[in-house]
Amino acid sequence: MDLTLYFFPGACSRVTMTALEGTGVRYRDRLVNIRADEQKSADYARVNPKGKVPALAIDGRIMTENVAILVFLDRLFPTAGLLPHDSDPVSDIAPLSDLLWCSSTLHPAMRQIRAPDKYTVGDPADVKADGMRKFAAECARIAAGVDGRWWYGERWSIVDVYLFWLCNVAQKGGFPLADYPAITDHAARVRQLAPLQRALERERAGAEAHGLTDIVY
Amino acid sequence: MDLTLYFFPGACSRVTMTALEGTGVRYRDRLVNIRADEQKSADYARVNPKGKVPALAIDGRIMTENVAILVFLDRLFPTAGLLPHDSDPVSDIAPLSDLLWCSSTLHPAMRQIRAPDKYTVGDPADVKADGMRKFAAECARIAAGVDGRWWYGERWSIVDVYLFWLCNVAQKGGFPLADYPAITDHAARVRQLAPLQRALERERAGAEAHGLTDIVY
Repeated sequence: MDLTLYFFPGACSRVTMTALEGTGVRYRDRLVNIRADEQKSADYARVNPKGKVPALAIDGRIMTENVAILVFLDRLFPTAGLLPHDSDPVSDIAPLSDLLWCSSTLHPAMRQIRAPDKYTVGDPADVKADGMRKFAAECARIAAGVDGRWWYGERWSIVDVYLFWLCNVAQKGGFPLADYPAITDHAARVRQLAPLQRALERERAGAEAHGLTDIVY
Repeated sequence: MDLTLYFFPGACSRVTMTALEGTGVRYRDRLVNIRADEQKSADYARVNPKGKVPALAIDGRIMTENVAILVFLDRLFPTAGLLPHDSDPVSDIAPLSDLLWCSSTLHPAMRQIRAPDKYTVGDPADVKADGMRKFAAECARIAAGVDGRWWYGERWSIVDVYLFWLCNVAQKGGFPLADYPAITDHAARVRQLAPLQRALERERAGAEAHGLTDIVY
């Protein structure tokens, strides 16, 4: 199987890349320079007409939407333990629900903080202020879920990495993450995970090759 | 199995309710009056601490996030045909990718149109203008996908209902949907689906019982 991940350093493709590293599979990576609007180029439109990263090419077929790619990788590499499973169908759906909370609630709120201009033709500061309020409202749930544990207990999962990435980027956008010691402690533990470290190395190599600086690591 | 759907007429719980109707299962419904902020009440926090609809109670256990509930119902009632399946793992993930596109891209853009005040402490008109631009950018893909067909071809799926709901609410928010005849034609076909009609009847009954008017049907 031929796999290519389309990514940008610091983007949510970091979660996908960490998942790939967690499976141990060999894959290529291809940096899409979103700072130069390469995701909107005609060339990239032939890869992913949605004009976004991440995208995963599997033997030339494209897969989009981060959560769908994560679920796919979890199915394809069940022994990697990217997500927990349960014989009870209600419990078994919980990880998908958590990933959706990340992608549909936390991610937009974080984006209001980090890229408020993506939500308004007017004053981004007003959007950012609202995003700070929303993200803070969710932090109680995040903190309770990672307080001295991984999100699912004893073993890390890709949800931990997604939460780490969301909180890390929000912090770089000015969110006072230090107010939540359970989250900053969790972040320190996520940073030690070997698959994340390998993903960060690949991101750094790509950033260097493209002369990109000021990436959020 | 005891099922209760927490919903509000016109909200995205309409998609979930249509899915339930599509399965033929018996379920209770419980209207959460979001116009009176009931979703933020202490009583509802005991049901769904996220303070949102839809939520589905299954023998007293709560499931949240619309897409997760839809995937759960599809798994539990495989003969209902809520989503297509394929023995090829790449093709099989496409419906999840589409649902994520609905929940993570289209839904936020539509919400910028319909409820722009949910994204800013400043002028909602600036957020709405940006939402109109974003939703229009996605309409080409929607129109191409439903032009004289269902999203997956010959048979309707819950993705058609989600797309219908998104476009319908955007239109009520002022989006010029009439510019996309393939979408308005698709909407007319979705409106004929018996499961949607039954869901709308239940919504209307709930709205009437609670004295709610000005619901988007």
